[in-house]
Amino acid sequence: MKDLKQYIADNKDRFLDELFSLIRIPSISAEAEHKDDMRRCAERWRELLLAAGADRAEVMPSAGNPVVYGEKTIDPAKPTVLVYGHYDVMPVAPLDLWRTEPFEPVVKDGRIWARGADDDKGQSFMQAKAFEYMVKTGQLPCNVKFMLEGEEEIGSGSLYGFCEEHKEMLKSDVILVSDTSMLAPDVPSITSGLRGLCYWEVEVTGANHDLHSGLFGGAVANPINILCKMIADLHDADGHITIPGFYDDVLVISQEERALMAQAPFDLEAYKRDLGISEVHGEKGYSTKERTGIRPCLDVCGIWGGHTGEGSKTVLPSKAHAKISTRLVANQDYNKISQLFKDYFEAAAPDCVTVKVTPCHGGAAYVSPLSMKAYQAAERAMETTFGRRPIPTRSGGSIPIVAGFEKILGVKSILMGFGLASDDIHAPNENYPLDQFLKGIETIPYFYKYFCE
Amino acid sequence: MKDLKQYIADNKDRFLDELFSLIRIPSISAEAEHKDDMRRCAERWRELLLAAGADRAEVMPSAGNPVVYGEKTIDPAKPTVLVYGHYDVMPVAPLDLWRTEPFEPVVKDGRIWARGADDDKGQSFMQAKAFEYMVKTGQLPCNVKFMLEGEEEIGSGSLYGFCEEHKEMLKSDVILVSDTSMLAPDVPSITSGLRGLCYWEVEVTGANHDLHSGLFGGAVANPINILCKMIADLHDADGHITIPGFYDDVLVISQEERALMAQAPFDLEAYKRDLGISEVHGEKGYSTKERTGIRPCLDVCGIWGGHTGEGSKTVLPSKAHAKISTRLVANQDYNKISQLFKDYFEAAAPDCVTVKVTPCHGGAAYVSPLSMKAYQAAERAMETTFGRRPIPTRSGGSIPIVAGFEKILGVKSILMGFGLASDDIHAPNENYPLDQFLKGIETIPYFYKYFCE
Repeated sequence: MKDLKQYIADNKDRFLDELFSLIRIPSISAEAEHKDDMRRCAERWRELLLAAGADRAEVMPSAGNPVVYGEKTIDPAKPTVLVYGHYDVMPVAPLDLWRTEPFEPVVKDGRIWARGADDDKGQSFMQAKAFEYMVKTGQLPCNVKFMLEGEEEIGSGSLYGFCEEHKEMLKSDVILVSDTSMLAPDVPSITSGLRGLCYWEVEVTGANHDLHSGLFGGAVANPINILCKMIADLHDADGHITIPGFYDDVLVISQEERALMAQAPFDLEAYKRDLGISEVHGEKGYSTKERTGIRPCLDVCGIWGGHTGEGSKTVLPSKAHAKISTRLVANQDYNKISQLFKDYFEAAAPDCVTVKVTPCHGGAAYVSPLSMKAYQAAERAMETTFGRRPIPTRSGGSIPIVAGFEKILGVKSILMGFGLASDDIHAPNENYPLDQFLKGIETIPYFYKYFCE
Repeated sequence: MKDLKQYIADNKDRFLDELFSLIRIPSISAEAEHKDDMRRCAERWRELLLAAGADRAEVMPSAGNPVVYGEKTIDPAKPTVLVYGHYDVMPVAPLDLWRTEPFEPVVKDGRIWARGADDDKGQSFMQAKAFEYMVKTGQLPCNVKFMLEGEEEIGSGSLYGFCEEHKEMLKSDVILVSDTSMLAPDVPSITSGLRGLCYWEVEVTGANHDLHSGLFGGAVANPINILCKMIADLHDADGHITIPGFYDDVLVISQEERALMAQAPFDLEAYKRDLGISEVHGEKGYSTKERTGIRPCLDVCGIWGGHTGEGSKTVLPSKAHAKISTRLVANQDYNKISQLFKDYFEAAAPDCVTVKVTPCHGGAAYVSPLSMKAYQAAERAMETTFGRRPIPTRSGGSIPIVAGFEKILGVKSILMGFGLASDDIHAPNENYPLDQFLKGIETIPYFYKYFCE
């Protein structure tokens, strides 16, 4: 790779300026008030793809937020890499925990601090800049397509239809995604599996209006107490999920494979120290990495009801709400799980309340075989720049559309991400180390090289 | 009582105008931003007491919100009635459930609709207008004192000290309180017992910051799930509270007394229909009226944590919170219960989280013996105007300061309230029937008459 390091060093400041122009647009897909920002962010991506060397780039309509599509064809006979990323970001609440403005990127202590610095503006932008390097230095070995969506953080609802509609346009030999993490700055790894996802909102209703907790307390069901009991009952004492049939399709990993995975370096004490916890907590019989890698889980992502403001208002509320999600593993069908939960939770409601479950979104788990040419190209690329063979890992996170790509487009994805656990994606003070950003740009051209050999 | 009905009919519109001037001041004691409104409301009460015929009236300082004090002495040798009420009101959230503005009273369908219409502006103002009638028509049979506080809805924290400091000024033979309900418009009743109260805020902390629910879910404790389990464990399957020692001091009511209380008219089907519920819910072995009257209970008044806004954000939050209250019955010491709960709940926290319990406020239960002269005067007064002997009832609600009066001032209180269960106090669309307001003004002078005979 001719002049690769020099090119990055010479253009580093411009790369950051361009990235920051994306970050400054608060493209929060979960919040309707940011509708205009979604389009603005897509338009900005289109400009940046053209500037990086795409032959054409467009902001294309979907059923929801627009999709940015760009391409450069050098020879139809050569392979095609489809780069996938997303330009939408997570909400930023609670704002008071941010040490800097979420949408005004700051470089400090060797990191970029901002919402989207890693997930996924920072990571997907590395792809654009590696592409630019290959185009500008005449070293692009294949055709490249870019597809950036605006609904990943809310389940990629519209992208499935977009892929169905544009199968021909999206034809490719592999889908390259930078939206995952490495084990540590000096321990490269490639995500060979992702968990799936299912998300519901539940509402428990007691009396038809808020009541005085003295006059009615003890005689009329309190929907918060009932909701708490129903949530508590979703796990047994060993941390297993109690929904009947929930584990039926879970892919059971062999003891040998578990032993291999256990070789990935993991310092439980440092993990606990970083999180400020005395003990980890999860399903009996599995290690911490297994609990997030090969086992499903169920978490309440939000709960609210009654008086949540200042002071000690005594009220017996009419309603209580929760947002509940599960992470699924290979073979679990999210539509089936979604229905299982809804049926179980609604039926579990005692007669004194009514319970409504609204399924929100879901996505399948994904496994990438280590025998794939693309996996091996990514492995060699990371070994070249990091000086160490990357470890295959299973991520606890979900990129539901990756399973969708396989189903709709018939193309496997390779998840070559450069994030770190300390990047606090989805949380206050999201950040992305500059070194990871630059090392990512340096690594990606090698992937192209080895994939096209 | 000379010209009593005529006086009320002639002055009704003015009575309402004056009451509305109190209601329009949003004197929410639980919200710091209403500090100025507390003083404004106290000042307005002072003017109204003077206008009603008090010799003197003052807004007096306390450790917290000011106390309105007024008096009229006709003869030091005669008995003294101390009227107690409160000018503070509950918060109004959730605002979107109100059909009218909470602080702009509207008379519709024979009811006054506003926050404070009943609790306690409407009820305490009946006392002022009955007093005015007796003064203006020369029929006041004894000395009268008024004391209106601004912290009843947050536990009367400053009034205990105020009473200690002003024992001499507050000397009286009975304390008359209109802050309770009757069984029905045609079923007068007198509250012979009140429940006590204990209130805590709890905070459960897992990791030191919000985490990605995919990357950490299943391996790190979710404080919402843990809080739900801890709340669920506060009751057993029979609806008994599980805190060790919680029931130790509960006054056990004899089977005969339970049988007597059971004679009060109560239509369970109508109760359920009014509340829109299929089943009541409470402690095994007790009727609905007993569950609120003679048994303590524990309710979550508020809960919050994680993502509570729009959309399906996947987050494993750092913290979860709840506001938890119990209602106590006679003999239970709220300070003891407060400590029992704190010790139990904090110790119940699993190692994977930390739990902090902050006691908020509390108050003792109260029982008024039916043999008291004041009880009998109230009974005769209500029988005179309602045409039916009132039934003694135990209220599930709490007026903690009433037990405080007995302890500090050595004076018993008589709880002659005219509210109805349908008044929705503490809830959206609080209201007070005009008929109850006017009938209350008509009844109170008879209390004075019979009490002084």
